[in-house]
Amino acid sequence: METPLDRLRKALPPEAIDTSAEATFRASLDNLRLSRCPEAVISPADEDGVAAVLALANEYHLPLTTRGAGSATTGAATPAEGGWVIDLSAWKQLAVREETMSAFVQPGVTVKALDDAAAGTGLAYPPDPGSARHATLGGTIACNAGGLRGAKYGVTRDYVMGLEGFLPTGEFVRWGGNLRKFACGYNIRDLWIGSEGTLGIITGAILRLIPRPAARRTTLLAYKDEHAALAAAAAIRARRVIPSILEFLDRETVAATLRLWGRVAPEKLAAFPASWAQHVPALLLVETDGEPAQADAEMTAVLQAAGGHATHRHTAASDDEAETLWTVRRGCSQAMFELGDTKLNEDVVLPLDAQTHFFEAVDRLRHETGLPMPTFGHAADGNFHVHIMYDAGNPAHRDKARDGTRRLMEQVVALDGAISGEHGIGLAKSPFMQLQHGTAELSLMKRIKETFDPNNILNPGKLLEPFEIWNHPRTKVRLPWDH
Amino acid sequence: METPLDRLRKALPPEAIDTSAEATFRASLDNLRLSRCPEAVISPADEDGVAAVLALANEYHLPLTTRGAGSATTGAATPAEGGWVIDLSAWKQLAVREETMSAFVQPGVTVKALDDAAAGTGLAYPPDPGSARHATLGGTIACNAGGLRGAKYGVTRDYVMGLEGFLPTGEFVRWGGNLRKFACGYNIRDLWIGSEGTLGIITGAILRLIPRPAARRTTLLAYKDEHAALAAAAAIRARRVIPSILEFLDRETVAATLRLWGRVAPEKLAAFPASWAQHVPALLLVETDGEPAQADAEMTAVLQAAGGHATHRHTAASDDEAETLWTVRRGCSQAMFELGDTKLNEDVVLPLDAQTHFFEAVDRLRHETGLPMPTFGHAADGNFHVHIMYDAGNPAHRDKARDGTRRLMEQVVALDGAISGEHGIGLAKSPFMQLQHGTAELSLMKRIKETFDPNNILNPGKLLEPFEIWNHPRTKVRLPWDH
Repeated sequence: METPLDRLRKALPPEAIDTSAEATFRASLDNLRLSRCPEAVISPADEDGVAAVLALANEYHLPLTTRGAGSATTGAATPAEGGWVIDLSAWKQLAVREETMSAFVQPGVTVKALDDAAAGTGLAYPPDPGSARHATLGGTIACNAGGLRGAKYGVTRDYVMGLEGFLPTGEFVRWGGNLRKFACGYNIRDLWIGSEGTLGIITGAILRLIPRPAARRTTLLAYKDEHAALAAAAAIRARRVIPSILEFLDRETVAATLRLWGRVAPEKLAAFPASWAQHVPALLLVETDGEPAQADAEMTAVLQAAGGHATHRHTAASDDEAETLWTVRRGCSQAMFELGDTKLNEDVVLPLDAQTHFFEAVDRLRHETGLPMPTFGHAADGNFHVHIMYDAGNPAHRDKARDGTRRLMEQVVALDGAISGEHGIGLAKSPFMQLQHGTAELSLMKRIKETFDPNNILNPGKLLEPFEIWNHPRTKVRLPWDH
Repeated sequence: METPLDRLRKALPPEAIDTSAEATFRASLDNLRLSRCPEAVISPADEDGVAAVLALANEYHLPLTTRGAGSATTGAATPAEGGWVIDLSAWKQLAVREETMSAFVQPGVTVKALDDAAAGTGLAYPPDPGSARHATLGGTIACNAGGLRGAKYGVTRDYVMGLEGFLPTGEFVRWGGNLRKFACGYNIRDLWIGSEGTLGIITGAILRLIPRPAARRTTLLAYKDEHAALAAAAAIRARRVIPSILEFLDRETVAATLRLWGRVAPEKLAAFPASWAQHVPALLLVETDGEPAQADAEMTAVLQAAGGHATHRHTAASDDEAETLWTVRRGCSQAMFELGDTKLNEDVVLPLDAQTHFFEAVDRLRHETGLPMPTFGHAADGNFHVHIMYDAGNPAHRDKARDGTRRLMEQVVALDGAISGEHGIGLAKSPFMQLQHGTAELSLMKRIKETFDPNNILNPGKLLEPFEIWNHPRTKVRLPWDH
């Protein structure tokens, strides 16, 4: 009897279908490193190919998971229920449209490739997730990726003017266009954005670009503790300045970075005060941008507001110096593995006036679980990354990490925060959706999924169905963005 | 037998229910002036009252239309199928939260009241529809209202962080919060925004505020024709400047204004060149804002880019002078009634590089229909208001206006534009939704409506059902915003 795969091989050319162990393994996981192998990885050459795959998936009720770079941290790109993976990472058409200050992109274009192309015409694409060199626009739109510059420049959603692609049921549709305003019926564009590949397959996007800021000013400010650093961030807000970056690093994060450098890169330590070895500070890394005069004026205002209580301040006099100031932030993610072999990166978001209470809660959790929780984040938009570090081989550690994660989420929701600011839900955060949303809200989301995707083929098992992530071991694998 | 109204009277206090002819007439129309009287106007005192009304409406399958000021221009607030109107214009709680640069508002707060309150703490609420003194935030969120500053500051959607209210089926829900990032499941907040009261009843919103621009610079530029004015707007874009306002007025608009002033306000003419009487210009009204140095630098760049081909330029030296430059724009809407007793205000939006083609199309339509079509709009975001003027008592005029409207919409869609940039669809534009959206798109929107509102009670007959607006005469009535 003819299998779905037989039918697929008749519908698409052989080079579009890969069932090798290597290809299916590569498509089996994202940065969460939780592997579920699909039967086949499909790289359709064009829209007709996507339509053919969708028709078969609907006919056989086969799970179908769309994939770009797989840099999501939540398992959003993991084919949780097997089936087929559609890999659109080779769809790389990119056209910057100078006159309309916009770009058309296919989903496989990376965030950095778009921003580089925009730079060539004096424009910029501001959303800058940490994974910008690898992450595709299809994936960042599907997950509404954020980044460091959110408070001033917004997130992915704020730059999407138009989307085109397929409904789960196979119809080609367009939402919005190369248009800066649009008030024509239900806004399904913004429902697609952040739906993590469960409500459609994006095959093209029209993105808004902005005039590229001509200048950047960078300052590193050190404070005796988290409380002082967050008070300084509040003083900057009270001054009515929104820096393009206002990155916060807690003492545990800084300490891990200094410790790693002490062992493997002592030359990096030389750029920072020797006293930090004894009195590890909490840091604010501040960037202002715009026309040179404006970037200068804003940095002056930042320093007036926040410099007074700093134990150390260093404003970069050159791009090279700015890059040196960035080394702590760039190195800290990797340095956290000084504190445990496994990291849970929880990208919670808090109201701007709840940050102090939030850090008190993180401190309590550290104390109660005994686990390190180095935390950094975007103080201007309240989006913090709490990294729960533990040793996966130690069952007591695992239990504490599991318990600590849930209690962190409970604290965040109790403070009117949200369980994800920019990573999304995927598999990793699905157990906490019931903390975030009430029954009526979740029930409506499920009915929306059924309305779009009656056969439940697109990326099933995500978002709305609690996944028992702790029952599934992570796979040790080297991914392109690993150092 | 007990009627629904009897049940309503048992559920709510008498002062919450008004069935008088005056009240039901007032609630029967919005700025489209197409009247359909409801049976009762309900002003619930609190959320429990809203819930009680929703429960009865669902039980009896009664149409229920939510209403604020009724300043919508599309019939979105008209109870097209009768039933009851819920009037939330008295819900005026407003709390600016300085530390989080946000505000909580109830739906009856006007746009201007919020911006005024924000100004008190050095903040601003940028969306500025022409109706800002009257329009409520509930209504502007429901219709995703825009305004003059869209290119630099975005539209209503860009300032909504959280919404709360009722699903059509009666459950109280919250979407988002006092949070600058949110990636937790389907984005129903942005589906509510712009759904024109068909998917829920908004009872509270958390809105983002921004630091209030310290300074504004205003310049009026005159050009020999529309082509030259739009070329100047393109030159400003090419210079990579986004003014806070870049308002375009075509010659027909300017001529109507000068004509009216000549008759009733000759003192206003004195502020402008006498030569305009012979050679009526097309105008650009440009505003830059920000810190004073920045507003100055941007205006200098604007004048370098766009001033060369201007036949007249005047940069205001004071707020009073700026107000004088604004008189043409402020007076032109009313002045259009020099050209016909009835106005169709079509707020189409075009790609930024399609404006010249668009104005050629408008010229052809003027010629072919013989009707005046004075046009102004927001050149920086491509959102133009074409005003089709005609005499309602003249059947030949009416036919031409009807035909011209449809052909205008066809041209807009052919140029990859949209039939509404900021007014929404309501009744007036519902016949053109099939031009804008394909069958699969409209069918999905209908299924979404059914998913949210299985009894079809909330604002039925709007958006997705073509309404034969030309079969329904407009009501002559003086509304609060009429001059």
